Amino acid sequence: MEPATQTAITANALLQTWQGHRRLTRRVIEAFPDDKFTTYSVGGMRPFSIMALEMIDMAAPGINGIVTGSWTSADTMEHNAPGGAAPLSKKEILRRWDEITERINSQWPLIPEGRFQESDLAFGRWQMPVYATLLYFIDNEIHHRGQAYVYLRTLGIEPPPFWER
Amino acid sequence: MEPATQTAITANALLQTWQGHRRLTRRVIEAFPDDKFTTYSVGGMRPFSIMALEMIDMAAPGINGIVTGSWTSADTMEHNAPGGAAPLSKKEILRRWDEITERINSQWPLIPEGRFQESDLAFGRWQMPVYATLLYFIDNEIHHRGQAYVYLRTLGIEPPPFWER
Repeated sequence: MEPATQTAITANALLQTWQGHRRLTRRVIEAFPDDKFTTYSVGGMRPFSIMALEMIDMAAPGINGIVTGSWTSADTMEHNAPGGAAPLSKKEILRRWDEITERINSQWPLIPEGRFQESDLAFGRWQMPVYATLLYFIDNEIHHRGQAYVYLRTLGIEPPPFWER
Repeated sequence: MEPATQTAITANALLQTWQGHRRLTRRVIEAFPDDKFTTYSVGGMRPFSIMALEMIDMAAPGINGIVTGSWTSADTMEHNAPGGAAPLSKKEILRRWDEITERINSQWPLIPEGRFQESDLAFGRWQMPVYATLLYFIDNEIHHRGQAYVYLRTLGIEPPPFWER
């Protein structure tokens, strides 16, 4: 095997990485007081509830698209957007979070051989290899969770340790 | 090949992912006014210069450790720490950043076959597979860069788009 194409990360390692990040993000969601979760922000950015819904809207239809090649938008984010549908509570978002965690675990073994290297049009908008789409979900989650750390710090709340997964 | 052990991310894809993030982080460093880069923070957190030095201290000896198994600490962070050595300017940090970018590209092809799956004691402190150590470098960079986005927003500065690498 060429050094350039040797396996850096296996499918199983990528799943463990993703779920490790999801566990940490769940703890960050939990660290917010209920009201601050849906209302508080810094620098005119979105409350963390909206960012968490964005993660949900990527992860839930995302794992389905990765497995099946069929990408459907969820658009639950509208709930907590300004002027959108009724905001979802922290409790409800955590409930959906846990449901998706289970769904990822149960659907993951169905990812076909070679699927990660296939180029696909994710959500009808992003053409790239499947591994890159999944990395984007994970990176986006880390990015916004990092912002939530600043929100928590400005609220005087100690965030969970970054290295604990 | 078992589905669980199939290749999700090749060595080359991981390099491209890392360097893509490094290009974005470089743009975020550049987006800071010189003085704010070394002094400004939100919520009692560290200025972004210190976070950037932390990334440098992981990446530079990190790529060497990944290739050779020899892990030496750089500890340049002390420069911009409170009461530490003379702060490094944005210009100097960008110079080091670019030097490391080149070093990563030139050392990467020397990573031995199978190295990513080996467990190693990174920096004499973290025992884990080499791929996980590298993912930690990347994740830590995304995490703190996300925090820099909040810093920039509160300064009224539009950060570079997250999806552009």
